[in-house]
Amino acid sequence: MSKFENVTVIKQANVYFDGKVTSRAVIFGDGTKKTLGIMLPGEYEFGTDAKEIMEILAGDLRVLLPGSSEWIEIQGQGEFTVPANAKFKLEIRTVTDYCCSYIAE
Amino acid sequence: MSKFENVTVIKQANVYFDGKVTSRAVIFGDGTKKTLGIMLPGEYEFGTDAKEIMEILAGDLRVLLPGSSEWIEIQGQGEFTVPANAKFKLEIRTVTDYCCSYIAE
Repeated sequence: MSKFENVTVIKQANVYFDGKVTSRAVIFGDGTKKTLGIMLPGEYEFGTDAKEIMEILAGDLRVLLPGSSEWIEIQGQGEFTVPANAKFKLEIRTVTDYCCSYIAE
Repeated sequence: MSKFENVTVIKQANVYFDGKVTSRAVIFGDGTKKTLGIMLPGEYEFGTDAKEIMEILAGDLRVLLPGSSEWIEIQGQGEFTVPANAKFKLEIRTVTDYCCSYIAE
């Protein structure tokens, strides 16, 4: 079972879209941050501050990356990267478990 | 902001009730475990293995503890304890953020 060791977890959840998207922050020893989250079925638009690497741990969804007109399908596991200061759209079809890494540039 | 330091986080979420209840496990240096979770509005029955201390970080809900006929109301923050090997019911009215501690006896 994959796990993060020697980390700090922020107790309070981040809640978006009436709780249909929620996450919790994990801070690593080097100061970097990831969030572990859940998305329930629905359509969402998100904006980034930092560059983000979204790892889908489980789910059925599609993503429209900024500047793209083609949706990317992910069923099961997958990964996509979103540049800093950008918007992207998600269509979530089944409960989706994810890990988002924030990348300083 | 309250946080747990020097802990291990299990990456994969626990998903119950079609994702309306989800949580992630946090393991402490002494081997004890908590889960940090989210419950969306609905009615749920849960069963315990170990004794559980449920800390409500935010929410609006009521709980029916085993052997009790009176619902306990929690609005905002609160806490209740459920014995080992017991069942309890929850009625969740708003998105509820919780921290559950598992107590070995």
